[in-house]
Amino acid sequence: MQFQRPYDEKGSIEVNFKGRIDRLREYMETAGITVSIIVAPVNQYYLSGFETITYSRPILTVIDRERCSMILPGIEESWGREISIADDFYPYFETPLDVSRGTSAMGHLESLIRKYPQGTRVGVEMGVMACSVGDALRAWGYELADVLAQISRMRSIKDAEEIAVIAKAARLVCTAVRETALAAHAGATELDIETAGINAAKAEALQIYPASVVGSGLSMCISGIERTVMPHILTGPRKIEDGDVVLNTRQLALDGYYADCQRTFFVGGHRTKKQQEVYDTLRRAQETAIGMIKPGAKAAEVEHASRKIIDDAGYAPYFSHRLGKSSGLEALEEPYLRFDSDYELVSGMIFNVLPSVYIPGIGGSRISDTVLVTEGGHRILTDSCSRELDDLVAH
Amino acid sequence: MQFQRPYDEKGSIEVNFKGRIDRLREYMETAGITVSIIVAPVNQYYLSGFETITYSRPILTVIDRERCSMILPGIEESWGREISIADDFYPYFETPLDVSRGTSAMGHLESLIRKYPQGTRVGVEMGVMACSVGDALRAWGYELADVLAQISRMRSIKDAEEIAVIAKAARLVCTAVRETALAAHAGATELDIETAGINAAKAEALQIYPASVVGSGLSMCISGIERTVMPHILTGPRKIEDGDVVLNTRQLALDGYYADCQRTFFVGGHRTKKQQEVYDTLRRAQETAIGMIKPGAKAAEVEHASRKIIDDAGYAPYFSHRLGKSSGLEALEEPYLRFDSDYELVSGMIFNVLPSVYIPGIGGSRISDTVLVTEGGHRILTDSCSRELDDLVAH
Repeated sequence: MQFQRPYDEKGSIEVNFKGRIDRLREYMETAGITVSIIVAPVNQYYLSGFETITYSRPILTVIDRERCSMILPGIEESWGREISIADDFYPYFETPLDVSRGTSAMGHLESLIRKYPQGTRVGVEMGVMACSVGDALRAWGYELADVLAQISRMRSIKDAEEIAVIAKAARLVCTAVRETALAAHAGATELDIETAGINAAKAEALQIYPASVVGSGLSMCISGIERTVMPHILTGPRKIEDGDVVLNTRQLALDGYYADCQRTFFVGGHRTKKQQEVYDTLRRAQETAIGMIKPGAKAAEVEHASRKIIDDAGYAPYFSHRLGKSSGLEALEEPYLRFDSDYELVSGMIFNVLPSVYIPGIGGSRISDTVLVTEGGHRILTDSCSRELDDLVAH
Repeated sequence: MQFQRPYDEKGSIEVNFKGRIDRLREYMETAGITVSIIVAPVNQYYLSGFETITYSRPILTVIDRERCSMILPGIEESWGREISIADDFYPYFETPLDVSRGTSAMGHLESLIRKYPQGTRVGVEMGVMACSVGDALRAWGYELADVLAQISRMRSIKDAEEIAVIAKAARLVCTAVRETALAAHAGATELDIETAGINAAKAEALQIYPASVVGSGLSMCISGIERTVMPHILTGPRKIEDGDVVLNTRQLALDGYYADCQRTFFVGGHRTKKQQEVYDTLRRAQETAIGMIKPGAKAAEVEHASRKIIDDAGYAPYFSHRLGKSSGLEALEEPYLRFDSDYELVSGMIFNVLPSVYIPGIGGSRISDTVLVTEGGHRILTDSCSRELDDLVAH
């Protein structure tokens, strides 16, 4: 996560950070946790609004029943006071002049935590906090309890403000994918058409969201039968040819929130019957999955129904990864649409539904849309990029 | 770290990964560590050559006296076998078809580690490995010992191949900074001139290192007295004016290796006497530091001598951060040039020497060069961008 705004600009998203901290506190109360120490930058932003451009110096957010405290580098103090909703700030320094005010994050953490009696349950992100910090806390006499699952659960259900900004990001990512397809003519390189897409999205953002920051996640613009059967490779200098299959994977963020759009297209529109057939299967697999998205649906059942269509068409071995993921402050985040998932869909969740097959000799085929779970079912946020192969052809 | 090359391209760096693993094994031997589990992506690359574009799925490298094993997602298996020097690969899967081959990284890790008797010392990156994984290892009966300090020490002393590629990155980052300064005329925005710099560097890279991948770390192009006194803010849409002070901070990577170059310049070349005086002080502070760089020098003494020049000129309160850092596979990495550092300089280390002052009413002033410690002393790698204010003026 790196989307700090220019210092004197306001972005498009206004968030009730305080409400999030209060929800974490409610959970801590029920779990017998007195104080939590948050270390993942993305979770610190989610709870306190603090974002910065470097983490070579440790930053910690400490939350108890009454106070939210930030331990941060001295050079980030004024920025922290400006944008974070924390109540207290404990800066540490790296110059001889400031030694008396503390020179390490761990020093401040020890002072803050030692206020609580030994044996106190301290909430930490067990899957993120480093062993060295966890061991120090235990050596000081504290018991660790996980708060990461709770924070992930909170993050998985988006606020109205988050949904609004993801919908805007979805529009931008559609522009990037659409303009990439429309720029794809024989002789252009993968890098050329990838650049055409991102430039179009950035130009659009500058015009309609001038105070917002556009971030770019994964961008893959892969061409030809041999390259498109590899799910994870990067755009390169390969010159595309007439009739090439192209997979374009895009993740774009607006003010830190990601949407995902992925399309398969054919240069000049020329594809084989087999390629069309594979793509049609994929469309049906995606439509089936999206059609099932509503509150109360089970992630595993959505995946199963979608995968069955691909299996029944004979492509089972070529659909080698999960059906979907979520996006938000991270381009890939929980929950996943996976065969062994135990998630139940809830209104406000976001899914990137991306059935894919990678068939040697025929090429890859992939499609992804960003879908919001609504009270009444779902809403596709990436409808402004067509899924029709004939629409995705250079003029 | 995200610099995976297009699948069918070769980059400019050839590395003896095996030699690195052997050096880690020697350390493990002396420290009584039987097997190590490496989790940081950058350290896995450093040791095994494995790089990929996503880490939403866990990847682990397990090294004992004889074997180097990778636990990785099934969809990365063929890529791993192609580029990693690991001996064994343990892929895990996320489709019902492959359940029998394992569906989780932790499942494979348990099978691999349980081969060693309980009580075995297991090396881990204590400052990186998550508490949840460390707790699992302890629950299985193993003792944890740190290998992060050793890996950081190894990474801090660059191989000849690494030095060669950092020198190339240094040339590119100089181009970016120089071209930014030469594009800076009244009316252009910060974003405009930042873009001019990066485009020039990318064009140069495409011409002279066509098979290499250019990566961009922090890029800050900040203008005016008010904005330049904040050490960490992002380039924005502000229109620059004649006489504006501009700070340009750049980190560029070639094939994954970062160099750093930072310059202060004045639009139209117009600065006040005071601004010139501050900058001259900074130059002397930097020259003093660089002049002391040689094998055996103490990082703290280099910092002290440099800081003293700034202090003596009366600017002590405005030099609010450490003097320097290193760069390599990360844009910011150890060792640091900090007043309380206990590092001793060794041939092959890289330093970014960056004295800076941020004075309200006068503006910021910053300069950074990438310097290699050599047997005979040092070599400045970023000499192709002038440090003379009169050279850094738009035509």
